[in-house]
Amino acid sequence: MNKFIRVDMTTKKVEIQEVPEKYVGLGGRGLTSNFVNDEVKPTCHPLGKNNKIIFAPGMLSGTSAPNSGRISVGSKSPLTGTIKESNAGGTFSQKMAKMGIKALVIEGMPAEDEFYILKITMDGVTIEEAPKEILGGCGNYKAIELLNNKYGEKVGIALAGPAGEHRLPTANISFKDPDSNMRSAGRGGLGAVLGSKKVKALVIDDTGAPGVPIAEPEKFREASKVFAKALLDHPVSGQALAAYGTDVLVNILNEAGGLPAINFTKGRIDWNENIAGETLNATIKERGGEGKVSHGCHAGCVIRCSQWYPDKQGKLITSGFEYETIWGLGADAGIKDLDDIAYIDRAMDDIGIDSIETAVAVATAMEGGLLPWGDGKAVLEAVKEVAIPTPLGRLIGSGTTVVGKACGLFRVPVVKDQGIPAYDPRPIKGIGLTYATTTMGADHTAGYCISGNILKVGGNIDPLKKDGQIEYARAMQIGTAAVDSTGMCLFVYFGIADNPAGYQALIDMINAQYGINLTANDVDELGKSVLKVERAFNKAAGFTNAHDRLPEFFEYEPCPPHNEVWDFTPEEIDEVYNF
Amino acid sequence: MNKFIRVDMTTKKVEIQEVPEKYVGLGGRGLTSNFVNDEVKPTCHPLGKNNKIIFAPGMLSGTSAPNSGRISVGSKSPLTGTIKESNAGGTFSQKMAKMGIKALVIEGMPAEDEFYILKITMDGVTIEEAPKEILGGCGNYKAIELLNNKYGEKVGIALAGPAGEHRLPTANISFKDPDSNMRSAGRGGLGAVLGSKKVKALVIDDTGAPGVPIAEPEKFREASKVFAKALLDHPVSGQALAAYGTDVLVNILNEAGGLPAINFTKGRIDWNENIAGETLNATIKERGGEGKVSHGCHAGCVIRCSQWYPDKQGKLITSGFEYETIWGLGADAGIKDLDDIAYIDRAMDDIGIDSIETAVAVATAMEGGLLPWGDGKAVLEAVKEVAIPTPLGRLIGSGTTVVGKACGLFRVPVVKDQGIPAYDPRPIKGIGLTYATTTMGADHTAGYCISGNILKVGGNIDPLKKDGQIEYARAMQIGTAAVDSTGMCLFVYFGIADNPAGYQALIDMINAQYGINLTANDVDELGKSVLKVERAFNKAAGFTNAHDRLPEFFEYEPCPPHNEVWDFTPEEIDEVYNF
Repeated sequence: MNKFIRVDMTTKKVEIQEVPEKYVGLGGRGLTSNFVNDEVKPTCHPLGKNNKIIFAPGMLSGTSAPNSGRISVGSKSPLTGTIKESNAGGTFSQKMAKMGIKALVIEGMPAEDEFYILKITMDGVTIEEAPKEILGGCGNYKAIELLNNKYGEKVGIALAGPAGEHRLPTANISFKDPDSNMRSAGRGGLGAVLGSKKVKALVIDDTGAPGVPIAEPEKFREASKVFAKALLDHPVSGQALAAYGTDVLVNILNEAGGLPAINFTKGRIDWNENIAGETLNATIKERGGEGKVSHGCHAGCVIRCSQWYPDKQGKLITSGFEYETIWGLGADAGIKDLDDIAYIDRAMDDIGIDSIETAVAVATAMEGGLLPWGDGKAVLEAVKEVAIPTPLGRLIGSGTTVVGKACGLFRVPVVKDQGIPAYDPRPIKGIGLTYATTTMGADHTAGYCISGNILKVGGNIDPLKKDGQIEYARAMQIGTAAVDSTGMCLFVYFGIADNPAGYQALIDMINAQYGINLTANDVDELGKSVLKVERAFNKAAGFTNAHDRLPEFFEYEPCPPHNEVWDFTPEEIDEVYNF
Repeated sequence: MNKFIRVDMTTKKVEIQEVPEKYVGLGGRGLTSNFVNDEVKPTCHPLGKNNKIIFAPGMLSGTSAPNSGRISVGSKSPLTGTIKESNAGGTFSQKMAKMGIKALVIEGMPAEDEFYILKITMDGVTIEEAPKEILGGCGNYKAIELLNNKYGEKVGIALAGPAGEHRLPTANISFKDPDSNMRSAGRGGLGAVLGSKKVKALVIDDTGAPGVPIAEPEKFREASKVFAKALLDHPVSGQALAAYGTDVLVNILNEAGGLPAINFTKGRIDWNENIAGETLNATIKERGGEGKVSHGCHAGCVIRCSQWYPDKQGKLITSGFEYETIWGLGADAGIKDLDDIAYIDRAMDDIGIDSIETAVAVATAMEGGLLPWGDGKAVLEAVKEVAIPTPLGRLIGSGTTVVGKACGLFRVPVVKDQGIPAYDPRPIKGIGLTYATTTMGADHTAGYCISGNILKVGGNIDPLKKDGQIEYARAMQIGTAAVDSTGMCLFVYFGIADNPAGYQALIDMINAQYGINLTANDVDELGKSVLKVERAFNKAAGFTNAHDRLPEFFEYEPCPPHNEVWDFTPEEIDEVYNF
């Protein structure tokens, strides 16, 4: 039996059903978005009792398919007010899948002011009082240690940090990774939804799990091999990401003139070497210590992009030290010291806040005079205040839009109240279309047009020109919605974009697992259907094409060195979702 | 010549045109809303260079018509993102009208970081550097004194306070009144728009003004007399308002069980006598001193509702001490000392922030644990921080929605991000329909259904029942949009609602002034057309029926003592704008 679990936090009742017919065959984002659209009132308050939050492993999660261990979390977002799917690595997804749990839904809201832990085993779900030690400001590192002690090292954990307890709009959900560090479902404030349900953590113990049944094991193994080879054969997913981590992008984007700096006032900096992936990697090697240079965020990852960044004594500062975080603090907020940035990244993980939203909010706060430009020490102190939270902590913890309002700014880089990430839309026009139109609010992972615009993978489209971008942004968003349903890491794109055998192998794995016969066209239709469902929810929540717009200042402030402005017309932008 | 003045703050050019054909015959809200819809890009950032702000006297302003001296200010609101018209008393409107200025528009935005004063005389408009003494935290009381000294006691003044300089979303525009105190265009953050244009103040000197021409003076005088008599004959506008001020409503609403208290958790309090109009009036009389008990906010007012509240030594604390302010701090935030409330009111006037939005934000901050319930001294200190602004001051100064987000609350009493004022929509269902549907965000003055629901003026509709409320809320909003175009104070409604002669006199005054022949039906059509224009703007800005909703918690939290919930369906609510 595939299980569909509902936990009602009002009544504390747990219901374990067979997966409803309409959700059979769905996984990851495809499942979470359909569920949210079916069951969440679009105009509900995201922190009220009528919102729901759903956890779902991807279609391939729990199998031996490489890089298939992502967990999707879906809800109405407290940050954007839109539907939201946010996914992460860690061990949670694979455990759920192996236990035959297709989805876990948390609904309702306790009347009392207590926090709980949901313990998930093969016997069902129990709702336990959260131990006082992990509440009220206890950081995520410590909380995971305490939960490991209590429930055993092998359990999977999903956690709302101090920010989630305070229901702040930047709060993420942290998933324990194979090293007992954290991987975040970062964007959209889903940790605040978990906090509103008074669920401090989900602890999953897969002892006795039957594993994922495979309809055609031989075919699956074969396809899996081809797929792994495709990933390893590509220079990006096979070499660059492991060697330098995602931070390899600093120099690439800087060279392209699309690295947003000093709150999006320019696209190129002269301190790029301070924060570049090459420097990051050299520093890790030089400092040694506990140092794994690269590792995966979940078992079965063959790309291993995650960087393990130690201090001068070789002791871990932070792992999963990503380009977008380093960009936000290093280029957009102008912090020129990689150690400063690493300590801030650690604090953000510990407090449980999205490192992109927080970094963009910090840079906006600097423009607003709330923080001094480029001051890593001041930012670290401010970020730590999110956990208390002080009024300044509450401002930063509420994200970019709130900081912009509180500072009276019009240069506020958000779409649908979510901070614009690490790629300037003026000189990289494809990604601008994704920011503007995705159902998620500004999000590069919803249609990573950097690929064809800058990396020249899966396309070769001049980033400075409008030609071909509308079709490309549409295709990337459709493809991404499908990939997000499989449990695959987005970086598998490098192995399938220009490699038909790699792409076919992905489809073959799904077919072999389920004993079905999907075609590439079916996958395309799946992606379209997910986007349509998400857009229907947003429409009912009050979103219109008028919200599919970039902030106005991009239209009249040129971005050096290319001095491009954002010049798509509303009518052109609206073509992206014409399918 | 009737003048239409444009001041471009980018180029510092002033253009004085004849009134464009399409605006002839319009005034007040009718003019400002048509202008904003015609010329402001609906998706522009309210604090960016593409927003515009327009000042327009009403159709009857500057004449001897009683109570006709209100000034309308229109723009896209930084608080709500909707179109906004906010109006106020003071001396500005009558001076503009007497000078033949039908509208003054400020557009563009300086590149430099300087504040300016616009000086308006019969010779035109000059743009002068603002004296340093009135900037950077100088309160409005002091600023008006300094401007009086510089430009003469008789000038009219419109002023952005410290909050407006900081472009905070609660910033109002303060207009000097006949006593050199202030009257506020309070709602919607229009002071922030003025601040974004770097206009600290407008100073108007009507020396040499020709006055308003009257086409049929005898007819006008006659109608004016009938109109004044109608106002004075009604017990509310003729007696109660002068005797007790608007604060007379505390006991009335408390008795009705519709006085929202402790952040809208109940509709009746037991400390009502501490803050009631009767107590206010007795205190004023007892303390004497400078005390005018009641006075008008502009010349020609016959209602004289404004209260002049002194300290124990008889020295003025605050004037224009209104029910909504006293409700917000006294009932909703639970501050039980009228002197505490008066000092906070003075601080809000001095800083230039909307006393409704601020009070609702304060009560929300109390629910969020940012401020202690009922602590007037703590609130006074917090409100003073808005002028600096500290992080706490920025939070409060950003209004209720931002405070709610930063505190992770779902009980956030706003519609379209504007705080819900002093009448609970659950036991007074008519006003709930106005809050939900008005183009302005929650605003009792957009369709004051308290009149027929509670005061039984112009109708007798059971406030606890849905029957008749849709038609009533529609009619009240249409009528209000028309009245807001005349320059009349809303309280004239008491003189015209049940008095056909009074209503006819209002129309006769307009006809006599312009030499035209409007009928009651024309006035109705005017109101409808204003609402349609406003709604068209909002639609283009991205608002849909999904935004015409009260906060969700009203639907499931009963309001004692009547224990009503908000039970209009979406379809019923949407009927209000079906005309």
